[in-house]
Amino acid sequence: MDVGIVGLAGAGAALARRWAGAGLRVAVFDAEGREHPDDLRHGACAMSSAVAVARSLAAPRIVWLCVPAGAATELAMQEVWPELAAGDVIVDAGDAHYHDAPRRAAALASVGIHFADCGVRDGAAGAATVLLGGSDAAARIVAPLARIAAGEGVYAHCGPAGAGHYVRMVNDGVERAVLRAFDEGAALLRGKREFGLDAARIADLLRAGRGAHGWPADPGEAGAARAASASGHGVVNEAVAQRTPAPVLSLAAMLELGTAQADGAARPTRMAGSARRRDGAADDKDDTT
Amino acid sequence: MDVGIVGLAGAGAALARRWAGAGLRVAVFDAEGREHPDDLRHGACAMSSAVAVARSLAAPRIVWLCVPAGAATELAMQEVWPELAAGDVIVDAGDAHYHDAPRRAAALASVGIHFADCGVRDGAAGAATVLLGGSDAAARIVAPLARIAAGEGVYAHCGPAGAGHYVRMVNDGVERAVLRAFDEGAALLRGKREFGLDAARIADLLRAGRGAHGWPADPGEAGAARAASASGHGVVNEAVAQRTPAPVLSLAAMLELGTAQADGAARPTRMAGSARRRDGAADDKDDTT
Amino acid sequence: MDVGIVGLAGAGAALARRWAGAGLRVAVFDAEGREHPDDLRHGACAMSSAVAVARSLAAPRIVWLCVPAGAATELAMQEVWPELAAGDVIVDAGDAHYHDAPRRAAALASVGIHFADCGVRDGAAGAATVLLGGSDAAARIVAPLARIAAGEGVYAHCGPAGAGHYVRMVNDGVERAVLRAFDEGAALLRGKREFGLDAARIADLLRAGRGAHGWPADPGEAGAARAASASGHGVVNEAVAQRTPAPVLSLAAMLELGTAQADGAARPTRMAGSARRRDGAADDKDDTT
Amino acid sequence: MDVGIVGLAGAGAALARRWAGAGLRVAVFDAEGREHPDDLRHGACAMSSAVAVARSLAAPRIVWLCVPAGAATELAMQEVWPELAAGDVIVDAGDAHYHDAPRRAAALASVGIHFADCGVRDGAAGAATVLLGGSDAAARIVAPLARIAAGEGVYAHCGPAGAGHYVRMVNDGVERAVLRAFDEGAALLRGKREFGLDAARIADLLRAGRGAHGWPADPGEAGAARAASASGHGVVNEAVAQRTPAPVLSLAAMLELGTAQADGAARPTRMAGSARRRDGAADDKDDTT
Repeated sequence: MDVGIVGLAGAGAALARRWAGAGLRVAVFDAEGREHPDDLRHGACAMSSAVAVARSLAAPRIVWLCVPAGAATELAMQEVWPELAAGDVIVDAGDAHYHDAPRRAAALASVGIHFADCGVRDGAAGAATVLLGGSDAAARIVAPLARIAAGEGVYAHCGPAGAGHYVRMVNDGVERAVLRAFDEGAALLRGKREFGLDAARIADLLRAGRGAHGWPADPGEAGAARAASASGHGVVNEAVAQRTPAPVLSLAAMLELGTAQADGAARPTRMAGSARRRDGAADDKDDTT
Repeated sequence: MDVGIVGLAGAGAALARRWAGAGLRVAVFDAEGREHPDDLRHGACAMSSAVAVARSLAAPRIVWLCVPAGAATELAMQEVWPELAAGDVIVDAGDAHYHDAPRRAAALASVGIHFADCGVRDGAAGAATVLLGGSDAAARIVAPLARIAAGEGVYAHCGPAGAGHYVRMVNDGVERAVLRAFDEGAALLRGKREFGLDAARIADLLRAGRGAHGWPADPGEAGAARAASASGHGVVNEAVAQRTPAPVLSLAAMLELGTAQADGAARPTRMAGSARRRDGAADDKDDTT
Repeated sequence: MDVGIVGLAGAGAALARRWAGAGLRVAVFDAEGREHPDDLRHGACAMSSAVAVARSLAAPRIVWLCVPAGAATELAMQEVWPELAAGDVIVDAGDAHYHDAPRRAAALASVGIHFADCGVRDGAAGAATVLLGGSDAAARIVAPLARIAAGEGVYAHCGPAGAGHYVRMVNDGVERAVLRAFDEGAALLRGKREFGLDAARIADLLRAGRGAHGWPADPGEAGAARAASASGHGVVNEAVAQRTPAPVLSLAAMLELGTAQADGAARPTRMAGSARRRDGAADDKDDTT
Repeated sequence: MDVGIVGLAGAGAALARRWAGAGLRVAVFDAEGREHPDDLRHGACAMSSAVAVARSLAAPRIVWLCVPAGAATELAMQEVWPELAAGDVIVDAGDAHYHDAPRRAAALASVGIHFADCGVRDGAAGAATVLLGGSDAAARIVAPLARIAAGEGVYAHCGPAGAGHYVRMVNDGVERAVLRAFDEGAALLRGKREFGLDAARIADLLRAGRGAHGWPADPGEAGAARAASASGHGVVNEAVAQRTPAPVLSLAAMLELGTAQADGAARPTRMAGSARRRDGAADDKDDTT
């Protein structure tokens, strides 16, 4: 197998699809029993464990961890790294806080294994934002896969271990504020009934103007495209830590917390083609935000 | 002459350039004595008054008023409309509040003259956002000129008289918030010294991803691209009037008021190629924001 | 009768109670048929019209208009002023925008009638904030009644006509932001379950410390004490008009608009002892916010 | 000696003054060589070290640490605790993050020494807010001193170890937002030149109304009364951690970061009567905010 993925919720399924679609043989394992959607079947091979995923690869082995931050990621790392050799790579593409990356990178480096953190945000069809942190050596090995994953989107080696998750966190915070600004503007357009403005049409036109910050599709749709991971609110903590004012980003984060409270539900990151549980139950993470 | 412009500050000079560059013969007059930059000379003809501009045109006469809102616009209208005939058009491309447009449109309609309000925001080279409000008849007459003015940007007939300035006002408010969100994010990227992130390079990469809301060029540059006209703060009043919450837009507007206070200067709308006064003094409106 | 009141919703009933309680004979009329609560009966005399209220008074006649801003206030003024003579006073204690006061004052002054605008906000039992705008002559006539109305609260002659409503508007905006800050703090106290903090008790203690800005009673209670009149959002428009940043006040106003939208109901000003309709139906304005 | 204080910057000098003024014998030590102001001399005795302070006390020994959070506090604790016996108390009255308290309390408890965290904020003359966290046993021992320190202000045993600093942190955040709201309102009052409003006088009147959240003295004075310690911004992190929206508090915090950046200086907690260095140089912490 050419690459391994542990975890098919969130980014995992999207990555599997991209690589399988590019003709790569992808080994996948999901602890919750999620299966990959039909269109993924060709090119993806379900393994019985994270260990099996690692063992199915040839050097340089590259295993992408796409599991929730915290315990799940620690567990996956503990299972996978003993199966790797010097020169292999573990990529943490989950929602871990960027603080964790340097520590993990140092620990793995002591046995010659590369570590990279990767922030993945799925965008419109065929395009994703893939932000990598890690040594130049790690980036060289991972770059081809990362570029395929990005498709017509963005791949960037942002800096050392931690930089990938950090930039993703800041980008999330900015995106949240931007989307909210658009939503508020759209509400004001629709609200001016005497003009009978077509907010969607106007947004299309403004976006077609190809300004660097045009209006997104469907302004006012309640957060379908919002990246609402836990790390997204980290921008607020970061601003306090750096003593750098970020009032707009913080406000957007706080407003989202308010909405989340009202809804009474966690807001998952919606990734195209997220897997469904083998038992047929709808995966919480499949819910439209 | 094919089209007339009264006022060369702000949008006026940019419009003159676009039309002259497209081979149209443009009649211009500026009460403050501004001359058009050299590259505008061919195709633009300086007139001695707004009246002279109107008289130089052939039916259907289209006169674009690009003067400050309020008294200047009223004066220009009073000078120009008597020179027009039924079927001609006055386009108010200044920073008038959208409230003024329906009134002016009705008054001119009583003598068969069309009125359109137009929000013009210059963008990157060759692209502008041109938002028109007015009757379908007025729009039909104005559209060709508007499209040339928009270049590779956006032209939209948004709705009835007032809709152009209204959409421009909302767009200004959204853009302000978006740019501020990017600035705050850029500050957080630069502020993480241990990662040595290159905020400009990362912004380039993210923008290249062609997301509908990518990062603008030079994030963190203090407002070079900000449209900071008075109408931009109208979004706040609008939200209150509609009882529609717009916390992010309002915050961005308030933050800008705070910065303006600190600078002790008014913030002009920066338009590419604004004219210089005949007496050689730098035109306030030429200042980089 | 000593004083007249037109309108028993909102401030009207509270004023009637204070004056009747002080032994004054109060003539009242309410177009919606509201009756005064039982405890008001002594000292208050229901009249059949605003005209009757005015006619029941002896010079200097002081009529307090406590009706909704706009048409209702205009109507009441039109009915009352012809019944008055030079030296009499009309006090607008409704929620009119402060812009209306100077105009009304000038119009009435032309026939020698004084006009004062008055912002009344009921506070804890026995205390109210009474903010008056108008000439010194008008203030001299009105002050005794205003002081009784304020009780253990505040009476201030703030400035010329319009100043009363203006200060009330700003005070409303500040109060909204302050109450929201307390609510947010209370939520954070209650949210730290591991400490088992008693937010109400802590608030009591902090308030007892008699700081000028202590915690109000029942922090976290959803807006029981909030003055949420339309004029309260005027602070936002004012900030824009003065180009003076007021980000916290604006945010609080926007957040309230968001809550109001969610509740789907207008938020009335809650005044102690508001009247009930004669037909027994609960007066919307009696609803707890 | 009756009580010991380590550190005379910030709260230390204020506490020394209160206790000495109440007739207690206070042992003090300041590592930076600060001396206590003249009016403190009677009742306060300068010691040569933190150890000397501890040794000068009789059981139950109560040592108040009023040094900067982090290394300084750790050092002071390491010097003092070996001099104490079971039943004695260490009170951390510095700006430590509330997270540190439970850990320290547990460590000291293992040798029978009580630990309490205390948030002290000096208010108007004679009144302070003293918020204690710790076991009931610790609170019983400390309460008499705490009440004297609070004077006409507030003393509250808020909860277990950490609760004192936590409530102080939240109170700081709320106070910041409240003061900013008042400042913004004051600016809007002064900005309405046509009314010639006397913002200070109006504030006095509103405050005299004894509302629970009246206007503070001198609204608009740039932060003379602001508690701007590092812990004050913790409310923002707390809101994110609890996923509880606190938009107003966060905005106030962010605005302060913006102001601090502009001033280019750290903002100390201003405590009445802070000490001066023995070498006569002005103590940075004495600077008026």
